[in-house]
Amino acid sequence: MKRTRIIELLRGELVGQTVLVKGWVRTKRGNKAVSFIALNDGSIIHNLQIVVDLEKFDSELLAKVTTGASLSVTGMLVASQGQGQSVELQAHEIEVLGTADPATYPLQKKGHSLEFLREIAHLRPRTNTFGAIYRMRHHMAMAIHTFFHERGYFYVHTPLITASDAEGAGQMFQVTTLDLDNLPRTEDGAVDYREDFFARHTSLTVSGQLEGEMAALALGGIYTFGPTFRAENSNTPRHLAEFWMIEPEVAFLEIDENMDLAEDFIKYCVQWALDHCMDDLTFLAEHFDSELISRLRFVLEKPFKRMTYTEGIEILEAAIKGGRKFEFPIYWGADLASEHERYLVEEHFQRPVIVTDYPKEIKSFYMKLNDDGKTVRGMDVLFPKIGEIIGGSEREADLEKLMKRASEMGVPEKDIWWYLDSRRYGTAPHSGFGLGFERLLLFVTGMTNIRDVIPFPRTPRNAEF
Amino acid sequence: MKRTRIIELLRGELVGQTVLVKGWVRTKRGNKAVSFIALNDGSIIHNLQIVVDLEKFDSELLAKVTTGASLSVTGMLVASQGQGQSVELQAHEIEVLGTADPATYPLQKKGHSLEFLREIAHLRPRTNTFGAIYRMRHHMAMAIHTFFHERGYFYVHTPLITASDAEGAGQMFQVTTLDLDNLPRTEDGAVDYREDFFARHTSLTVSGQLEGEMAALALGGIYTFGPTFRAENSNTPRHLAEFWMIEPEVAFLEIDENMDLAEDFIKYCVQWALDHCMDDLTFLAEHFDSELISRLRFVLEKPFKRMTYTEGIEILEAAIKGGRKFEFPIYWGADLASEHERYLVEEHFQRPVIVTDYPKEIKSFYMKLNDDGKTVRGMDVLFPKIGEIIGGSEREADLEKLMKRASEMGVPEKDIWWYLDSRRYGTAPHSGFGLGFERLLLFVTGMTNIRDVIPFPRTPRNAEF
Repeated sequence: MKRTRIIELLRGELVGQTVLVKGWVRTKRGNKAVSFIALNDGSIIHNLQIVVDLEKFDSELLAKVTTGASLSVTGMLVASQGQGQSVELQAHEIEVLGTADPATYPLQKKGHSLEFLREIAHLRPRTNTFGAIYRMRHHMAMAIHTFFHERGYFYVHTPLITASDAEGAGQMFQVTTLDLDNLPRTEDGAVDYREDFFARHTSLTVSGQLEGEMAALALGGIYTFGPTFRAENSNTPRHLAEFWMIEPEVAFLEIDENMDLAEDFIKYCVQWALDHCMDDLTFLAEHFDSELISRLRFVLEKPFKRMTYTEGIEILEAAIKGGRKFEFPIYWGADLASEHERYLVEEHFQRPVIVTDYPKEIKSFYMKLNDDGKTVRGMDVLFPKIGEIIGGSEREADLEKLMKRASEMGVPEKDIWWYLDSRRYGTAPHSGFGLGFERLLLFVTGMTNIRDVIPFPRTPRNAEF
Repeated sequence: MKRTRIIELLRGELVGQTVLVKGWVRTKRGNKAVSFIALNDGSIIHNLQIVVDLEKFDSELLAKVTTGASLSVTGMLVASQGQGQSVELQAHEIEVLGTADPATYPLQKKGHSLEFLREIAHLRPRTNTFGAIYRMRHHMAMAIHTFFHERGYFYVHTPLITASDAEGAGQMFQVTTLDLDNLPRTEDGAVDYREDFFARHTSLTVSGQLEGEMAALALGGIYTFGPTFRAENSNTPRHLAEFWMIEPEVAFLEIDENMDLAEDFIKYCVQWALDHCMDDLTFLAEHFDSELISRLRFVLEKPFKRMTYTEGIEILEAAIKGGRKFEFPIYWGADLASEHERYLVEEHFQRPVIVTDYPKEIKSFYMKLNDDGKTVRGMDVLFPKIGEIIGGSEREADLEKLMKRASEMGVPEKDIWWYLDSRRYGTAPHSGFGLGFERLLLFVTGMTNIRDVIPFPRTPRNAEF
């Protein structure tokens, strides 16, 4: 007999049939005559209740049926008399595939802290919370691929190991095959990178954008979805050393359409969560964040507010005049801190906000310079609770202006000769943005620590598993 | 007016309408009265023919319309009189968005070698060949996600930076933030990894399998799809230092069902290519590999041949007795070389072959040991032209046997304590396999060098772009 997944059994269509189910014991309870086993197989957050007539089963076998044990159960699916479930399984045969010693199994008791579960990241997917989060992680990835595929964008894999640091987006991890105990040296005593695997100094990428642009200026619309790295020594609930980014780049797209794309995209993902993940969302809302589902609906309801950075500063300055206190000073030319972003989103406009036209000094060299010579066509999408969830821009398409900006920002021309080629030959207006996948997951799951939305987080002093 | 992509215009439904198209010039030809511009926007391999009445346009403008230039064109879409296209665009307005100087643009002339194009990997997506390959790369990724999503498998991101080398699958790249010019030392003179970012020696992963198993033994069925790394100094058409792998892991799945899954999976991908990529396939078949499409159909037609390693060795030994010569010796206990694999597939069985039950000595410690104590439940899927395209196994679910095998193969228990936990608590039969994404792409595109199926290849002494 073929195994049927619990998500299918709970639909109730197989009532009256003999079925085979396999999964892990969540709880066992009962009385002298009957045991009730809550079995979970990961396909859905809900358990299947297994009803065991104790007269029919060996007590030694049942003694092994403890929390965490894996079972194979054959039985009759019937409508349930109990509350909280529509069907249950009357067990005919039970096989214990793997035991879990109650004396040592770490998930024996309920109510572990998220901190403790991070230390057993290899087992935490067996909990309701992380089952829900990882199923939603899958669904968000699928939403992203589906969104772009249906619109004719092509998925592009940009390189992870890179010889350039053109983004200047933070400290990078070095990648090497040199023997650190026996480094080759040049005549003047420097490390001789000609001996390294790539015959040069290489690092892990901080963004696939520049390579993505090369593809967009040939294929039209593309997106990346891959890991990126930051060697920042930031031990905070918002930082990971290794995380996943989605970076669409689109030829012939200007800033207004780029905002449309970003808004459509993120609304599509949130709508997908509501359409496909309601069981998991309901669990997460009940246990972690009662406003989760209403917050998701909230971002879908209204168009995002669009305004310039300059307008944003004016609003913040007016708020300060009106007595609003902020921790960090804010003035034209300063970057918005998270508290400023959240004020605009949560208090002033009470909806997601897209801020555009930032001072060029606080943005990357590749952003298109406005005619004012002072601001660039960057755009940040600000979300409730999260702050910046998307950062993007129209890209500078003009070769001369791009070279001037690169020079001003200290990006060496020799590192980006190939990037400049795309403006030298057949340049075109184009735009793109980056979404941190884990930021999206924080938003749709309601979790508050980024280490809880990626299976095996990488943070300073932590690369376990 | 909104831009319409060429893939939509070529469907012909907009004939008689004024449309806006943007793209890059592939060629321009004509006579004294009229110019024909072949415009491509990456959405499809075919160009749109733009018909330019020379009387209506400034000759200075048209002089800038050279190969590689990007244009914005408004005009009337009409049925085409010419051969080779169904529709064409009668230009009303032309704007040159970006020029491409014919004196220096590297793709000016046709018929560049693949070797030359590798040196300009940032521009090669602008060619027909690489446009086709990258569109197919997207389609194969989408096929993979769709296949698993529809079957209830969850996409899992396993870590890239790892502290363990349990796979022992080859040389690894070291990841570090230590300053190589000024390495911290312990008292006995060794490099002091307590000062490194992760406070230990870390590397880039060679596989996400072990972490994937942790997720499968909670969520049921999962798959990974991410980059993996090998620091092998192999400068061959089959090796990359950075490549993408797909690794499904499935709880409660035994070896026979694992073979079913692998066969269904790869046939699904090949069928998707035939269903969605026929324009690109036709181009690649015409220019590189005339048997490409028939080879794809060939793998779909028959069930894959399944046999044990021992049977395979007998067939090869019989062939040698019959006079067949091989470069490498083959005997029970030796790994199959590519020539042996291709003999079995292309000559003996003339269909894809799944070889199972390999000698334990030539396979990894985590493969389930058969009752004979000599062989393990590994399985390799062998394909025409490619050789091994998938490698997998049923995993050892028994804690004692797994620890014994790890010890025999020299895998330290302290590196895999968490992996062993999954057998200690609620272990279950489970299986999985790995598909090298670029191997699949070689097969479906007919290309012969793996550097031509990934946008920015990473190979020894090469990390450009």
